[in-house]
Parts: sequence; structure tokens; C-alpha cells
Amino acid sequence: MAEVMFKRVALIGIGLIGSSLARRMKRDGLAGHIAVNARSQASLDTSMKLGFADSVSLDPCEVVKDADLVVVCSPVGTYAAIGETIKGALKKGAILSDVGSVKEAVVRDLGASLPDGVHLVPAHPVAGTEFSGPEAGFPELFEQRWCILTPPTGTDAAATAKMRSLWEQCGSNVEVMEAHHHDQVMAMTSHLPHLISFTIVGTATDLEQSLQNEVIKFSAGGFRDFTRIAASDPTMWRDIFLNNKEAVLEILQRFTEDLTALQRSIRRGEGDVLFDKFTRSRAIRRGVIDAKQA
Amino acid sequence: MAEVMFKRVALIGIGLIGSSLARRMKRDGLAGHIAVNARSQASLDTSMKLGFADSVSLDPCEVVKDADLVVVCSPVGTYAAIGETIKGALKKGAILSDVGSVKEAVVRDLGASLPDGVHLVPAHPVAGTEFSGPEAGFPELFEQRWCILTPPTGTDAAATAKMRSLWEQCGSNVEVMEAHHHDQVMAMTSHLPHLISFTIVGTATDLEQSLQNEVIKFSAGGFRDFTRIAASDPTMWRDIFLNNKEAVLEILQRFTEDLTALQRSIRRGEGDVLFDKFTRSRAIRRGVIDAKQA
Repeated sequence: MAEVMFKRVALIGIGLIGSSLARRMKRDGLAGHIAVNARSQASLDTSMKLGFADSVSLDPCEVVKDADLVVVCSPVGTYAAIGETIKGALKKGAILSDVGSVKEAVVRDLGASLPDGVHLVPAHPVAGTEFSGPEAGFPELFEQRWCILTPPTGTDAAATAKMRSLWEQCGSNVEVMEAHHHDQVMAMTSHLPHLISFTIVGTATDLEQSLQNEVIKFSAGGFRDFTRIAASDPTMWRDIFLNNKEAVLEILQRFTEDLTALQRSIRRGEGDVLFDKFTRSRAIRRGVIDAKQA
Repeated sequence: MAEVMFKRVALIGIGLIGSSLARRMKRDGLAGHIAVNARSQASLDTSMKLGFADSVSLDPCEVVKDADLVVVCSPVGTYAAIGETIKGALKKGAILSDVGSVKEAVVRDLGASLPDGVHLVPAHPVAGTEFSGPEAGFPELFEQRWCILTPPTGTDAAATAKMRSLWEQCGSNVEVMEAHHHDQVMAMTSHLPHLISFTIVGTATDLEQSLQNEVIKFSAGGFRDFTRIAASDPTMWRDIFLNNKEAVLEILQRFTEDLTALQRSIRRGEGDVLFDKFTRSRAIRRGVIDAKQA
């Protein structure tokens, strides 16, 4: 059993990530008391039944009261309203964090009119599965995965250090970076891949019915990998695209240009160009394997 | 040990698929003698050393002479020249097959001026890994995977039945369909996913160096799945796109339209549209899981 890091932790939202964090903290004794808030009573009941919550409430203010750490674990589109609701109830000295996949919008939405003495340390655990909801979580989700912290300039160093320690105890490798830079990196590594996957699965959905059944039947040729990515939570992804619009549209523009060039090479029958491009992409895979991310 | 199905089998080309087929036939005694042809002496030496070839030759005619079954396992761009070279050496009554990922071009290139009494039964085992070469093969590669046969109209039914039986003994589920239809289905399930993956990995390659290193580091967010697909054999894929040009360009056009629509929804902030699209793609994933392809 590790040392108790926070006497009272409040989680706002309890899906895949929130419940995994709760399970990990509960399993390793990192929190003295875990209070959970969600929008549905069903999620609260599940949290109590599964044993990772010590108390639950539909009222976010009740949950964050006296908490040393508040982690917002709901879709990023809900942050502005949550920030507005809880700011008066936050304890002086508390750390306010989150687990969202975009970070500039988080600093904007949670950081707005934050009371003095509350430390904002946004976090993004780069981990997940295609499943959602409090039942889908498990305590090992963050092991060997990255967790990126994006404290705004001037954030209390001790608060950042404490969040680093929490995520390291959850098994993650922690990296600190600037929120804007985080959003650019994620636009390429995560947001564009998801956007493409949602699109290609959508394209398949619009095929004539006879072809559509066979697409599922013969999906092992590559398509099924896209369906897994495209099965991720719709609310969460809607909010990511709306809250990282600029970086996503910029990288999407580059991708579209590259796709148009490849399309032209196929149409013109430029075998050498295709061969060169495909050969280069093997090198990137090698980089991913060497970085032990595959 | 199963019954010997073919006294002599000739394999033209010995990469991942060819060597997996050879290993399976050797392991289960499906072939009396396996003769291997390749363009490099190194591949022939490897084939002898790994034990799945009984004889090897750099001359395709020597290898196909007296063979009851000839399977072309090289990239589809080589088929026309191979067909021209071996047609005079094929035994009357022999079955000529292949393992290529496109099928209309195969019927065109291998079927041209085929001598009377030789049965063309093209095949496409829908299986593979990101690795290539004779060392990458393994006898279980085809188990629980589809194998699609596309015999042209008028093909001897006994020849088709024999190829069905061969692939079933390799562990595959066999399906017979028309070559043109096969190419349409594969354009969606396999060729477009690969094209997209090659493109997105290319887009990442062109990023500023600082961003590029981080793309590899944080690839677990979705990107790494694309790098795996995009690591497939460049020659094979060049030939697939050049030989299924029409179907690929058609499905790519649909994809691009869908992507443009999604891009517009993000730019306009149409959250409801995004949510609906993402929700629909979850249903397709469910179909893939129900079809036991995931």
C-alpha cells in the first residue's frame, strides 16, 4: 500500500478514464476518500456497487467541498459549465485537474475566474479503449502509457509535482508541455486518426446493402482496425473536435493535400512515386517500434 | 497427415504468403513435392534452408514443368510477364492459381492465351501481417481467415473444388465470387484503408522535426494503428493500386466527399451532426464483432 496522497479526491464524471483512475487510487490506497459526481443516478449507483467510490452525489458542489484534489473526467464540452458551478465550492489549496484530450480549451474553461489559492494542473492520460462507461474501467489502464501535464505559466510547482507523482503511481510516464503544443501533437497522433476512422466507417455505411455486408465479412484486410478506433465514445469525440478545431483543421488540410497527390499518382499510374512513398512510411513504423509504442 | 492433394506444386515467388502456403502444405503433407521459383538466389537458399522447398530454381519454366498446381505468389505487377513466360511449360490438366489481392487484372494477365487444358482458378487469401519475405511466413497464417476464389465463367468445376479443398485444409473459410465484385469489396475493406494509412503516415513524416519525434512518442492515441498497416510491403501495394485503379479511385472519391462534409461540420461547430455520425460508426463496429472478424 502506497502512502495516502490526498485525503479527499472528487471526481466529476465517471466514465472509462474516471473509473480507471478511481479504481487505481482505491486499489493502491492513494486517496483517503473518493467522492464521485455524475449526471445520472445510474452511474453513481454503479460507482458504489463496484466499490471504487466512498460517497456519491448528483451535486458537484457537495462532492468538491473539502476535496484536496478535484479531477474533471467528463467530456470537455461540459467543462465551462462545471467550472462555473464548482468554483465557489473549491477549497483553498486544492488542486483542480482533468483528464481531457484537449488542453488549451481546458485552461480557458476551467481556468476562468478560478479563486485564489486553487491550483489548476490540467492532465491528459494518453490511454483508452473502445469501450466507455464506469464498468469499462480497470486499474491498469494507465500503465506504461504517457500522461501529459499542461500547467499554465505561473502554476505552483509543488502542485505540478504532486500531480506528476500521482500519475507516476498510476504507472504512467509523465511529460510536462505547453497546452498549445499538446493540442498540435494530439491533432496529428490522435484526433486526425480518429476523424479519418469515423469517416471511412461512415463511407462504408453508405454503400449499397449487398456490398456493406461483405465489407463487414471481409474486414480483416485492414478495415476492422478503423472500426475499432471509430467505436470510441461519440460525445467525447464531438467535444474534442469542437475544442481543438484549429489544430485539427490545419492537420486535416495537410492530410487532404497528401491524399490528393497520392490519388493523382494512382490515376496517372506513377508506380515509382507510389513505391517511394510507401517505402518511407515503413521507416516511421520502425520509429514507433523503437520507441516501444507498438 | 492429410492425403497428398497434388503430386507436384510449383510456387512462383516466395514471400510472406507463398512461404506460409509452402509451410502449411509441407507440415500437413498436402503436396508430394514443392518446387520454388524466385527472382533472387537468396530467397531460394532461404527456402531450402527453412525446409519448405524440395527443389528450387531461378527458371520459372523448370519449376512449373510437370506441376499439377502452379501458384503465383509474387506482386501482381509481375503476372503478365510470368504468364507469358510459363504458358508453354504448363502441363495439360494443371491448375494455375495465385494469391494476389486484386482479381480482375489476374484473370486478364494470367488468363491471356492460356493453353487448352490448363485451369485458371485465381485465389485471394485475405490474410497477412506487416512483415514480408520468406522468413516471415508461418503455417497458421490462413487459419480462420477468408480465402476468395474467382474462377472465370466456364472454369472446370473440379478444379475449383480442388482449390476450395486446398484452402479449407489450410484452415480458411472459402468463398467463391466474381472477380469484378471481389475488387470492389476489397477496394473498401482493404485498399482504401491502406491508402489512407500510407497517406497519414506520410503527412506525419512531413511535419517539422520537433513535432515528428513527439508524434512517434505519443503514437498510442491512434496513430500507431495506422503505422502498422502502412508498414506493409511497398511493391505489393504499388501493384495493387495500379491494378485496381478504377475501384480504388471510385471509393476514394466517396471517402473524400465524406471527409469534406465532416470537415465542414467541424468548422461550423455542428456538434449534433458530428455526434450522429460518430454514433452510427459504433454500429458498424458491432457488426464486425458479431461477424467474429474482430
